[in-house]
Amino acid sequence: MRHLEEELEDLRKRLLEMSGLVEAGIYHSVQALVEKDPKQAQLVLKNEARINQMQIDIDEIATNLLALEQPVATDLRLITAAMKINTELERMGDLAVNMAERALSLMDQKLVRPPVDIPHLANLVESMVRKTLDAFVKRDAELARVVLASDDAVDALRDAIYIELIRFMERDLTVVRQSVDLMFIARNLERVADHATNIAEDVLFVVEGVDVRHHATRTSHT
Amino acid sequence: MRHLEEELEDLRKRLLEMSGLVEAGIYHSVQALVEKDPKQAQLVLKNEARINQMQIDIDEIATNLLALEQPVATDLRLITAAMKINTELERMGDLAVNMAERALSLMDQKLVRPPVDIPHLANLVESMVRKTLDAFVKRDAELARVVLASDDAVDALRDAIYIELIRFMERDLTVVRQSVDLMFIARNLERVADHATNIAEDVLFVVEGVDVRHHATRTSHT
Repeated sequence: MRHLEEELEDLRKRLLEMSGLVEAGIYHSVQALVEKDPKQAQLVLKNEARINQMQIDIDEIATNLLALEQPVATDLRLITAAMKINTELERMGDLAVNMAERALSLMDQKLVRPPVDIPHLANLVESMVRKTLDAFVKRDAELARVVLASDDAVDALRDAIYIELIRFMERDLTVVRQSVDLMFIARNLERVADHATNIAEDVLFVVEGVDVRHHATRTSHT
Repeated sequence: MRHLEEELEDLRKRLLEMSGLVEAGIYHSVQALVEKDPKQAQLVLKNEARINQMQIDIDEIATNLLALEQPVATDLRLITAAMKINTELERMGDLAVNMAERALSLMDQKLVRPPVDIPHLANLVESMVRKTLDAFVKRDAELARVVLASDDAVDALRDAIYIELIRFMERDLTVVRQSVDLMFIARNLERVADHATNIAEDVLFVVEGVDVRHHATRTSHT
């Protein structure tokens, strides 16, 4: 099935391109915050339409492949995984837009101190996004497991940021608004990491046929 | 294709059952908060495993249908929509668990005043979940549009809750922690509404073949 192989390659390339845009969105929304640079935030807002169109195109290609090629076994798993990954990426894009909007809102406020740990968290999360798509394209189960293992570090870092910000608010009434904005940015980064984790689980399902969601260990029958 | 019709009916029933559990999860997590009742929160935590297992089963049934029945056109759209709805429902279940955990954490704190608008928001969101699944099962495009139209009310209500809680914190240092917990509960309810909206869009895609995501208006080619 040479034809199907080419179509699947096209699907992979499109998902990779989409994830590149999403990753850039996460980077620029956090840089907008750190450097108080509205241009980087606006770039993220500008790219939203492109990401949305990519999602629609990928969904259509995948659905057409299901209809026309009638794939089974691994190819079928690959296509349904591609549809899921597509959804995850689009949600990550929305989260980047949300962070860019909060970065813009924070620029109007006098930030009492730089949001030290948020760039750190953002780096970790961007790396998860990159690795999880690499794992998908290369069918690399080991790399997918690295992504799953990173999730605890993300949660720990987010907790540390929350605790710091709550203490900060409890000491100083005037920083409530900005602290809440920063908490939601940390929360959004954690949600991006959750989406990356979902993709890693889809990758393991494609590569090994094992459904690792909810730590189930049984083998798929498809 | 009598056989496929029966399988699709089974798929619909399972999604309906799953959404009933999810809806109950939202209800009980908020009631746990309002009535300071740990039992209702624990019920939500207990049901998580069941919802997760339902998700795995539905995904397997849908994938098998794609592989074995080689559906096209409307049936294909229905099955891929069922897979998406399945994911949305499971995410809603996670959000209910998250709210139940925050309700438990809030029980240890002396709540300064009842979270007046959160039950109101929860009612609205539960109604969206119920309507969107009804719309799917009955292939009712009008009902799906009602769900889409409710999303603005949810956002407005969530904004009002945020503003109230921020003012609250700015006036009184000792309520920061509980206010943050309440904000995250409001945020989770809004996210549940977003998932309901996603399902409504999937329903419109199944019923009318129109992709309404991102307000695109073009017709699908599948």
